[in-house]
Amino acid sequence: MKINDHPALYLFILFGLFFSEMNSQEEIYSKISVSVIEPSVPQQLVALGMAIDHYEHNENNTISFYVTQDELQTLRDLKIDLTVEIEDYSVFYREQSISDSENLIDMTRNSTVANGFDLGSMGGFYTYNEIAGKLDEMKQDYPNLITTKISIGTSIEGRDIWMAKISDNPNINENEPVVYFDALHHAREPLSMATTINYMFWLLENYETDGQVKFLVDHREIYFVPVVNPDGYEYNRQTNPNGGGFWRKNRNPNDGNCVGVDLNRNYSFAYANNNSCSSPDPCSGTYRGESAFSEPETSAIRDFLAVVAPKTAFSTHSTSGSYLMPYGFDTSPPEFDIYSEWASIFLSENDYPYGVTFQMLGYTSCGTTRDFMHSEGIYGWTPEIDGAGFWPPQSTIFDLVSENVYPMFYNSWIAGAYVDIQSHKLLGDALPGESFSLVVETKNVGVGASAENVTVAIEVSVSGVMVSPPVNYGNIEARTRAD
Amino acid sequence: MKINDHPALYLFILFGLFFSEMNSQEEIYSKISVSVIEPSVPQQLVALGMAIDHYEHNENNTISFYVTQDELQTLRDLKIDLTVEIEDYSVFYREQSISDSENLIDMTRNSTVANGFDLGSMGGFYTYNEIAGKLDEMKQDYPNLITTKISIGTSIEGRDIWMAKISDNPNINENEPVVYFDALHHAREPLSMATTINYMFWLLENYETDGQVKFLVDHREIYFVPVVNPDGYEYNRQTNPNGGGFWRKNRNPNDGNCVGVDLNRNYSFAYANNNSCSSPDPCSGTYRGESAFSEPETSAIRDFLAVVAPKTAFSTHSTSGSYLMPYGFDTSPPEFDIYSEWASIFLSENDYPYGVTFQMLGYTSCGTTRDFMHSEGIYGWTPEIDGAGFWPPQSTIFDLVSENVYPMFYNSWIAGAYVDIQSHKLLGDALPGESFSLVVETKNVGVGASAENVTVAIEVSVSGVMVSPPVNYGNIEARTRAD
Repeated sequence: MKINDHPALYLFILFGLFFSEMNSQEEIYSKISVSVIEPSVPQQLVALGMAIDHYEHNENNTISFYVTQDELQTLRDLKIDLTVEIEDYSVFYREQSISDSENLIDMTRNSTVANGFDLGSMGGFYTYNEIAGKLDEMKQDYPNLITTKISIGTSIEGRDIWMAKISDNPNINENEPVVYFDALHHAREPLSMATTINYMFWLLENYETDGQVKFLVDHREIYFVPVVNPDGYEYNRQTNPNGGGFWRKNRNPNDGNCVGVDLNRNYSFAYANNNSCSSPDPCSGTYRGESAFSEPETSAIRDFLAVVAPKTAFSTHSTSGSYLMPYGFDTSPPEFDIYSEWASIFLSENDYPYGVTFQMLGYTSCGTTRDFMHSEGIYGWTPEIDGAGFWPPQSTIFDLVSENVYPMFYNSWIAGAYVDIQSHKLLGDALPGESFSLVVETKNVGVGASAENVTVAIEVSVSGVMVSPPVNYGNIEARTRAD
Repeated sequence: MKINDHPALYLFILFGLFFSEMNSQEEIYSKISVSVIEPSVPQQLVALGMAIDHYEHNENNTISFYVTQDELQTLRDLKIDLTVEIEDYSVFYREQSISDSENLIDMTRNSTVANGFDLGSMGGFYTYNEIAGKLDEMKQDYPNLITTKISIGTSIEGRDIWMAKISDNPNINENEPVVYFDALHHAREPLSMATTINYMFWLLENYETDGQVKFLVDHREIYFVPVVNPDGYEYNRQTNPNGGGFWRKNRNPNDGNCVGVDLNRNYSFAYANNNSCSSPDPCSGTYRGESAFSEPETSAIRDFLAVVAPKTAFSTHSTSGSYLMPYGFDTSPPEFDIYSEWASIFLSENDYPYGVTFQMLGYTSCGTTRDFMHSEGIYGWTPEIDGAGFWPPQSTIFDLVSENVYPMFYNSWIAGAYVDIQSHKLLGDALPGESFSLVVETKNVGVGASAENVTVAIEVSVSGVMVSPPVNYGNIEARTRAD
């Protein structure tokens, strides 16, 4: 982690300046090392009145200890060969405190937290500029797996809405199933962005070593828009640079009225269905805007989706810990069987419940991203990342992003073909000397492609059992079972 | 941990004030909860334009979400029954950051860190006042195992040098072997105090459940002086309230010359043996003072030791990670066999090497506490706690205090009788149907008392083996073997 990635830096620097002017010790202490190849040196140093009695003995036959500037001058006047290891201990001590905080948070990492993902400067979350830097870092480190970041439009205040695609041959539009992920429609939900950035790094870092990741990246076009609402997110940084900003909408001035449109109420499908599912009041947190797609941010997403035509999508929010499926505006879901089949897999890592807003939460919302997506033939979700509020404790961030890697991975698979075993049963008795049949039912649970040339092979983990050769199931169409 | 125990508090409060004046968001957000026993409530809230779409559903059938102050007023005007959970999220968020830091550091605890021991406000170390508070807390929680803190003298600047005794019947001077622990002769070595305070709590907390601890506390008088040099330690707090202060000596003004006497050069035995083992210069960090026991701090220790007459003692320092035995002033040790036998046990937990200063470090020091102790018939040590410098990262404190519990425990045992098995051997063959003898050599490794009525019993962990009844070794004098 670079030192300027971390909020503690600002804290300690400010604090340091503040206090050092007030009353910090005037004496500057340096840590130096002196050769003791000549064994009489320690006694000479003591004879000079140096307090070396807590020295460290180093491998290169030097000892390290602390001296005042007067003592340092004395040693230099005596032409004693020395190396200054720490010029000013008080500076060192402040830096040590910062790195210690980072070390402690690093202890909360786990195996599905990507190496490239660390904590940003805004309460542990990346700022808009840091996110752009992370996209650049991905391109730098994995030039053959991700595009350079591309602006798919600009916000009300003119900020770029960045997009990057992960795939093999990323600069070529290949005929592969398309998946789409976005985040930060609502500016105060940085966990949506954090899970997305972590997933991106996780794909890139595991491509070479994990066959499943490699196959997926090779056979999908995976698009990411980590900040749909840059103005709102930047506004939160400006008001609360250390996190905790609560602005939700974009920063449309609304002709001098209250500021901001709720971007997740500004999509066209069932837009303004009624006044109790989105607000006509510019001062409301759920203000729907003047008209569907009145906002440049939502228009940019609409236009981009029209071009890339994903099959599945996560438009991620936080923090209720759930999978919201379409429709938000209505009381019952379309294609519930498909959505619920997938959700029951998503939640295997995080136990998030799923459903439509009305069933789960008792209200309706309209003009949402997922409803629009579904109306456009995209299986669109609003995953709500869990967490203790919009700005959770930094020590919980790694866990929260981690528990969403697998759902994102699964959602990427099902945009194309993904064959899963549905059931298996024995016909006959598994007795010594007998033979029996194993009936395996498979299903292509994906929506985007036929699964071609599916084979089921049986491996035996004990000796003395004979098995038939692998069975070919031929091609399995999307959303189709095969015995 | 009380919130004002932690340095982060100061950081965040200062920081908070600073930034909130600069540019924090004007809008105050509150977290409220509203009953949803009436299932139409969520839709009503949405119809009011409230952004409840990330609400938490609570067990008591309420939902919690965040509102602006205008929205809160709207709900109150409508007489909607609500509870304010968080008045001002920005305040909550700062407190969350503090408690998160504490949680992270708590993750570094281990089983020999006492519950009562936590991190103080000065770079993770208790201040002089916090130490006094901890002694009061011990008395409050374990009134029958520790004395009220007692001043055994005052410093140059008039601060109390606190002492407390741990024993059963603590207010009675029983005829039991005496052990002595002190710390912070050198003001910049707070690890010495931390290990001592942790050990005190550890004894108190384990008395009821650990038979060895109970026996020890019941049969020893264990004295603790956690801050020999309160003025120097307070000076460090004043100059560096968040830790990192480097003052070493006491605060004797030395008649307007440079300030401070090195208390660990001011004892009488081999005092000022020569000018290369302590300094005659008041400006030196190892200034020995005008005469032996010229300082009230060292005089207080001398007088106290004369009264309680310990058999073994730790005068703890930091940070070189070693066990220094007497003599510091000379090149070879007295009673090396005894000291080294014990040190080889001390180091089993922390691998600290041991020896006399000259052998280990190549110089001599005179007028030290341990030399004085030895000259007075006390087996006196200077344990140097390990650690990355005088003010180590806070995340390492728990480990460092932990690895010194057992050595302190052992040092407490050997002040009286402590019988250990020295060797055992078989006479005869351990074959089925045969009988054989097990010869067990024991030794009272302690110095303070005869071990009375020592019995060795053999337990068998497999069936089919017959053993003789326990063997009584009678009494074993201090420092004596028995077969």
